Amino acid sequence: MENGETKTVPKSWAMVGGDGPRSYAQNSSYQASKRRLTLKALVLILQIFAHFESRILDVLLGRIRTFLAMEKIMEAVEQKYHAQLQNSPPLEFQVFFNDVTANDFNTLFKTLPSYQKYFAAGVPGTFYGRLFPKSRLHLAYSSYSLHWLSKVPQEVVDTKSPAWNKGSIQCSGTAKEVAKAYSAQFKTDMDNFLNARAQEIIGGGLMVIIIAGLPDGILMSQTVAGIFNDFFGSCLIDMAKSGVINEEKVDTFNLPVYLSSAKEFEEIIKNNGHFCIERLNRLNHPMMKMKVEFHISLFRAVFQGLLEAHFGRDDVDKIFEYLAKKLAENYDSVFNAANHQHVEHFILLKRNIN
Amino acid sequence: MENGETKTVPKSWAMVGGDGPRSYAQNSSYQASKRRLTLKALVLILQIFAHFESRILDVLLGRIRTFLAMEKIMEAVEQKYHAQLQNSPPLEFQVFFNDVTANDFNTLFKTLPSYQKYFAAGVPGTFYGRLFPKSRLHLAYSSYSLHWLSKVPQEVVDTKSPAWNKGSIQCSGTAKEVAKAYSAQFKTDMDNFLNARAQEIIGGGLMVIIIAGLPDGILMSQTVAGIFNDFFGSCLIDMAKSGVINEEKVDTFNLPVYLSSAKEFEEIIKNNGHFCIERLNRLNHPMMKMKVEFHISLFRAVFQGLLEAHFGRDDVDKIFEYLAKKLAENYDSVFNAANHQHVEHFILLKRNIN
Repeated sequence: MENGETKTVPKSWAMVGGDGPRSYAQNSSYQASKRRLTLKALVLILQIFAHFESRILDVLLGRIRTFLAMEKIMEAVEQKYHAQLQNSPPLEFQVFFNDVTANDFNTLFKTLPSYQKYFAAGVPGTFYGRLFPKSRLHLAYSSYSLHWLSKVPQEVVDTKSPAWNKGSIQCSGTAKEVAKAYSAQFKTDMDNFLNARAQEIIGGGLMVIIIAGLPDGILMSQTVAGIFNDFFGSCLIDMAKSGVINEEKVDTFNLPVYLSSAKEFEEIIKNNGHFCIERLNRLNHPMMKMKVEFHISLFRAVFQGLLEAHFGRDDVDKIFEYLAKKLAENYDSVFNAANHQHVEHFILLKRNIN
Repeated sequence: MENGETKTVPKSWAMVGGDGPRSYAQNSSYQASKRRLTLKALVLILQIFAHFESRILDVLLGRIRTFLAMEKIMEAVEQKYHAQLQNSPPLEFQVFFNDVTANDFNTLFKTLPSYQKYFAAGVPGTFYGRLFPKSRLHLAYSSYSLHWLSKVPQEVVDTKSPAWNKGSIQCSGTAKEVAKAYSAQFKTDMDNFLNARAQEIIGGGLMVIIIAGLPDGILMSQTVAGIFNDFFGSCLIDMAKSGVINEEKVDTFNLPVYLSSAKEFEEIIKNNGHFCIERLNRLNHPMMKMKVEFHISLFRAVFQGLLEAHFGRDDVDKIFEYLAKKLAENYDSVFNAANHQHVEHFILLKRNIN
């Protein structure tokens, strides 16, 4: 049992707790895609920009997945390099790990794998802006981050706007004006991301993006993630009605998350024009059941910071207590309501040569 | 009143407390030296490696100095670039801030100046080894760090060695075997540093080193810093004799700090052979008096971690209590015993073109 947001906690969570399917096996199709990557322009020094899945719990787990991805990419480049140039000196790699400035880089640096065969650096700042000098990067890798918007679109939490998302905390896909506002924000963010990376990646350089998305023709409200979010939203409304939390705060709370279809995502990249699409795959999630407590703790790990910033620390404890109680009572009706899971879009881009 | 170790706390400490001489004025000769830097090979993207003065209190203060130095270097490069190439596009700079992995990079990133006109990255790891891929850097800047040895030379804390530094905690310069061991460690460390940077800096690239040192013909034991260290050592011996702290621990404690003469430092660089010396200046310290409490707190800020690792947390509190009491009683006799201050060697190196 997974949903769109808890899935910012990478599949490898099971490795740590030992409770659930082994994520590496599940990741195998995705690892294989990466092994097939071809680097047209082989370079002696590969400067890699990687950014992590953000948010609390995934920090450590996201790192493990990202570290593995870096290893695999470097292996592939080395194999190709040494196959073409026998007796060549060893390649040297520099990997830049990016996250927001508030991220815990100290822990990141301490958890760098000891077998590390690259020079590591940390780069603080939002990836929706510039992070590197021009033409510095040969490969960028963005994993499970870009479905996080830079902000909630203003209109959907403006009670005077026609796009006000009354009674909902997410872009469920059913309210047209709301969907338009979310989609516009996603487009703006993606454009900013693509424009910044276009400056930083050399002509012919590659970019891998893995992003949470929706299957074609499926709305967020039809997915497990969307249904869970709607259930969570209804809990907030209950609590506001009974005066436990502030009603206005509930009215102005929305999740800064947008799951796009492959088609929408593809169009944004094509309109942007800086990259061509070398590969676009859909990676499905297996449907998984997990215990209520575990589901809540994952959801909390991902959204606690966000909720605290909006509702305050004390209210967040109350909110999760209520959510846990309600979810236990309604578990089957919530999670049996959908047979759609969100998907991952895997995309390999090549920077156009100007 | 300053000494060799508290001086790893940069001169700019006075800025924060507002108590004492203004460090920017004092730094003026050193800033001017930097403004005169010439970059023979102008490059569109300047990758700068800067490492901070390490150790606790200087973290923040060292940063302010290093941030300023980075600004000045970039200004100088930009002026020269735009003078030679009118109507040229703006330069872009990337600055790598290096410190040991245990350093607090989170605070570093949060305290980056907001007017920042470069792309910043943090690089964890010891500068006595490789930190970057080959030929990645155009300029390196090492401020007040290289007089910290990678370790205390084994012999000087080996009670069976002829180089055992009995009754002293530093390389005072009077015991020949001890001085030889410290000097050898310094040479090894400097060679490792120069060899690593030689790989990383492009041919013709520059490196600025600012390092605490000794005036020609002056021993550590003749400087204020050395006399203070000897006094501190005698306090430790007192405490061991009265059974407050462990005698063996005192016997095996030495400071991993070595202040070299300009001549010794110059010879190491020449023998290393990867860099030529473009400039070698001596920067004097003004003699300053400060209050006992302030002196102790600076000393503690710099050495607390080191002392804790050796003696344990509880003993360190006792040690500083005793030191404060003794220093108050003997202040004049300690600090009037010397009229020599340690100096700073300022050196500008150019990477040889192979």
